[in-house]
Amino acid sequence: MKKFQKRGIDYPIIDGQRTLPGKYYHDEKIYQEEIEKIFYKFWIYACRAEEIPAVGDFKLIQVEDESIILVRDKSNEIKAHFNVCRHRGTQLCTEEKGHFESKTIQCPYHAWTYQLDGNLISAPLMKEGNGFLKSECSLFKAHVTNWEGFLFISLAEDPVPFEDQMEALMGKFSDWNMADLRIAHHIKYELNCNWKLILHNYQECYHCPGVHPLLSELTPFQSAQHDFSKGAVIGGFMEISKKRGSMTMDGEAAGPPVCKVSGDDLQRVYYYSVFPNMLLTPHPDFVLFHHIIPKGPGKIINDCYWLFHPDVIEDKNAQARIQSAVDFWDLTNRQDWQVCEQMQVGTKSKRFTRGYYSGREDILLSLDKELLKALGHSKIDD
Amino acid sequence: MKKFQKRGIDYPIIDGQRTLPGKYYHDEKIYQEEIEKIFYKFWIYACRAEEIPAVGDFKLIQVEDESIILVRDKSNEIKAHFNVCRHRGTQLCTEEKGHFESKTIQCPYHAWTYQLDGNLISAPLMKEGNGFLKSECSLFKAHVTNWEGFLFISLAEDPVPFEDQMEALMGKFSDWNMADLRIAHHIKYELNCNWKLILHNYQECYHCPGVHPLLSELTPFQSAQHDFSKGAVIGGFMEISKKRGSMTMDGEAAGPPVCKVSGDDLQRVYYYSVFPNMLLTPHPDFVLFHHIIPKGPGKIINDCYWLFHPDVIEDKNAQARIQSAVDFWDLTNRQDWQVCEQMQVGTKSKRFTRGYYSGREDILLSLDKELLKALGHSKIDD
Amino acid sequence: MKKFQKRGIDYPIIDGQRTLPGKYYHDEKIYQEEIEKIFYKFWIYACRAEEIPAVGDFKLIQVEDESIILVRDKSNEIKAHFNVCRHRGTQLCTEEKGHFESKTIQCPYHAWTYQLDGNLISAPLMKEGNGFLKSECSLFKAHVTNWEGFLFISLAEDPVPFEDQMEALMGKFSDWNMADLRIAHHIKYELNCNWKLILHNYQECYHCPGVHPLLSELTPFQSAQHDFSKGAVIGGFMEISKKRGSMTMDGEAAGPPVCKVSGDDLQRVYYYSVFPNMLLTPHPDFVLFHHIIPKGPGKIINDCYWLFHPDVIEDKNAQARIQSAVDFWDLTNRQDWQVCEQMQVGTKSKRFTRGYYSGREDILLSLDKELLKALGHSKIDD
Repeated sequence: MKKFQKRGIDYPIIDGQRTLPGKYYHDEKIYQEEIEKIFYKFWIYACRAEEIPAVGDFKLIQVEDESIILVRDKSNEIKAHFNVCRHRGTQLCTEEKGHFESKTIQCPYHAWTYQLDGNLISAPLMKEGNGFLKSECSLFKAHVTNWEGFLFISLAEDPVPFEDQMEALMGKFSDWNMADLRIAHHIKYELNCNWKLILHNYQECYHCPGVHPLLSELTPFQSAQHDFSKGAVIGGFMEISKKRGSMTMDGEAAGPPVCKVSGDDLQRVYYYSVFPNMLLTPHPDFVLFHHIIPKGPGKIINDCYWLFHPDVIEDKNAQARIQSAVDFWDLTNRQDWQVCEQMQVGTKSKRFTRGYYSGREDILLSLDKELLKALGHSKIDD
Repeated sequence: MKKFQKRGIDYPIIDGQRTLPGKYYHDEKIYQEEIEKIFYKFWIYACRAEEIPAVGDFKLIQVEDESIILVRDKSNEIKAHFNVCRHRGTQLCTEEKGHFESKTIQCPYHAWTYQLDGNLISAPLMKEGNGFLKSECSLFKAHVTNWEGFLFISLAEDPVPFEDQMEALMGKFSDWNMADLRIAHHIKYELNCNWKLILHNYQECYHCPGVHPLLSELTPFQSAQHDFSKGAVIGGFMEISKKRGSMTMDGEAAGPPVCKVSGDDLQRVYYYSVFPNMLLTPHPDFVLFHHIIPKGPGKIINDCYWLFHPDVIEDKNAQARIQSAVDFWDLTNRQDWQVCEQMQVGTKSKRFTRGYYSGREDILLSLDKELLKALGHSKIDD
Repeated sequence: MKKFQKRGIDYPIIDGQRTLPGKYYHDEKIYQEEIEKIFYKFWIYACRAEEIPAVGDFKLIQVEDESIILVRDKSNEIKAHFNVCRHRGTQLCTEEKGHFESKTIQCPYHAWTYQLDGNLISAPLMKEGNGFLKSECSLFKAHVTNWEGFLFISLAEDPVPFEDQMEALMGKFSDWNMADLRIAHHIKYELNCNWKLILHNYQECYHCPGVHPLLSELTPFQSAQHDFSKGAVIGGFMEISKKRGSMTMDGEAAGPPVCKVSGDDLQRVYYYSVFPNMLLTPHPDFVLFHHIIPKGPGKIINDCYWLFHPDVIEDKNAQARIQSAVDFWDLTNRQDWQVCEQMQVGTKSKRFTRGYYSGREDILLSLDKELLKALGHSKIDD
């Protein structure tokens, strides 16, 4: 099922493998195209199901100009609504997360009231007829899917099936039972770089020896193997040197193996880019993931989460080990952000036309191709 | 003279009454069109005559990129000059308001000097002839009119007569003798919404029960009557429940009736949108008005003023009553700003095409038509 | 060699001498054109050679989106490199100035390493061949010239010879031995005006009586003489009234005459605009210069430097005199900035089409012509 390919020391560069031109990181028009054709169209990560556990719980998801209410409705299903009243367009809800006490969503302006599933139940003083029917004024809906406890949404009117976009993800990490895991820690980073630079950064360890001395000790950068599945989910793994070790400040595990993780997976850390807005990093003992939120061609918010089994989270004695995993990745993250931000600035130069990819960076080329396909750019002009 | 129409409970919606598309609140190009075709062309409210009482007193009025000096000249007339030296374009004056001690306006750069009426009287070292004549270098003038103590300006070279634009306002509130009133209080608000949302908000009380519980107690929202005058001044009134009451925290009057106000007017509060940049709200005992200054498609400054008769202002015992009127409207204003700002955000969604107007909101449609006429937009594309 | 022309009191205005239209100070597109055709093409002042005295010393020069590393290489030559790694475009260096301890420039991302002269000496794991040759991946170079201790750079691929652009500067101030002088003081100003307004301001003393009372006492504004050399270096001098005086708070010299300065030059202060980004002001006893860095149509950074002979700088007793020269010019600068900023605001008015130049301001017309020639604008539309 999983096909990986070992990366050698002398992996040659391949003729003509060049990076995207700088405008793909800086041009406001290309950015808007990405928003329209990717972030408003693809399935994108939204939040964890555990963040809205009870009926009436909601969380707002901001995608560029669109605000989406993710809410658990009375039938315990999660619904995604555009945060826009059907009367005159008022934003219904402004709190980032919370609970609808009334089990309805009421517009603060003229008190139009919707059920949690989006149906309009009251439009005061508005007589039906003459072109107005309550049944035609449900909240605009977005699509939502729960994959292993991760909620993905699509703002497209008619999205491709989730399983098609995420084919390479299906069943890949079932041993982790990720739906059972819970957020043990969260750090929000604000970075001055294009969202794609973070995806690129996560898919090559050519930079590891210089940028991440500690990480390179725990997982030798030569140990990388790539997964040659096709499509929007791209990644591979690295080998953990220390027996039963993990990615922590001292290299020891942060907890027992997660659920059914066993065999080779006990000595591996996986790195997957779940195109376009998530990095998924299963360790033997916990799962790290990044939620990437573009805020312009040169700005992102990067929400980083550490998932552990609830038993570990509730175990007082385990807290220092969790913290060690947090500290390790916070350190590593900051090392990465620094070089990504410098790459953002440097590629603004007119002299930067297109850079070189080494053989170690061929997976980045796959990401670039995925992007260009999504944008419908068949030719790149420098 | 005044024709009003009572609004019923069941006033039906009218087929096809839809709001403007969202771009009218967000698009930078439409905003620039509004500046050019409305704010640089129409008569707009500038300030109260009482703000520049003495010869040499001035106030600067900023309208987008234009700064206008409103000044009282030696013949006691109010003049409006573009704040631009005719030599090389330097802004003459930077203080928001003040007094020209020298009774001249002197450019700080090369000391070109103008009379208060705008004539150039000195251009050091500049010899006349060769295409330069002082008499041709007076300050560029804007037009100014004093209506009941309110100064209106027009930046158009050749504006329509003030009386034509403001036909519906002529004689409407003569019982108030507004020229005799004085500013008792002023609050400056900065809001994140389009200027038109504030005009819309002021012309319907459909939102009152939910947004303004106290206001709705003092003036039942069902009591609204609309004025069907045509043109740029649109409004109506609501009935004050309490006999000889007013809009204050306790519903009691803030002072004696203003000047000659009598009869029905003692139980009414009027709400007029003086298109494009003023809201005028005469009460039996005081006059409230808002000066709306657009600062981009999604930003305004809203200067709110309370006018009382000078006798009340000078009466120590009346201060608590004035404060009660201020507190009531400050509370009500903030309730409105909140929903207007939420409407601004919500209408940015791509899913918001055009909203519904209830029968209660048909006066908003009149404002929209006024706007589209001014912009010369005969068709709306969603 | 030096031809100057005395300015009289009654110098007439010349028919048709009008300023540039306001858009030349405000339009984002014209600003971008200036960046492309002037700042990315002409020789521009970068820094003093003394700022990078030792092998490995560097200073970053920011020109709009371009960052240039000025570095002294192993052969003691000064080199100018684009601050962009040839691998994937990462900015190599972020400190404003410093020293490359390793005598190499290493990219922080994937450790590609360059010699100080720009040659790529190491690209880890990158095999040569297949379109990749280290010898073709030297840092992109900018051109650099040392004129009297002032380093000028050109970002053009193939710039005109420095001596052609700066013809009028060649030999003009050789008596000052400026390469021997050192920075005694530096003030960084941030101004809200277009870069050209500062050049204009420096080329006429019509504004001096009103704006600079102290300066006008030290150098009567009627004493100005203009230099009618052609091209990108434009200026003249003013006479110092006090025998052996200078531009200081008390008008006394700040030190002995600089190097070989003698004769008439002992009673003159020169004002040259070294188009496009430097103002050079040799005094008998010190040299003042401004480095103008545009940051948008309406913003600049203005770095102002006072150069003295090292003997004076090292003389403890001379410090108060140096400070007096600093104080005088800081005062005078701030007077100028105020009027330039007011001119920036005023010229934004639609009513400002084109202003008048007096006979005293004809040298500004020469600057305007230089600009229009550089931009290739043969006709000005108002």
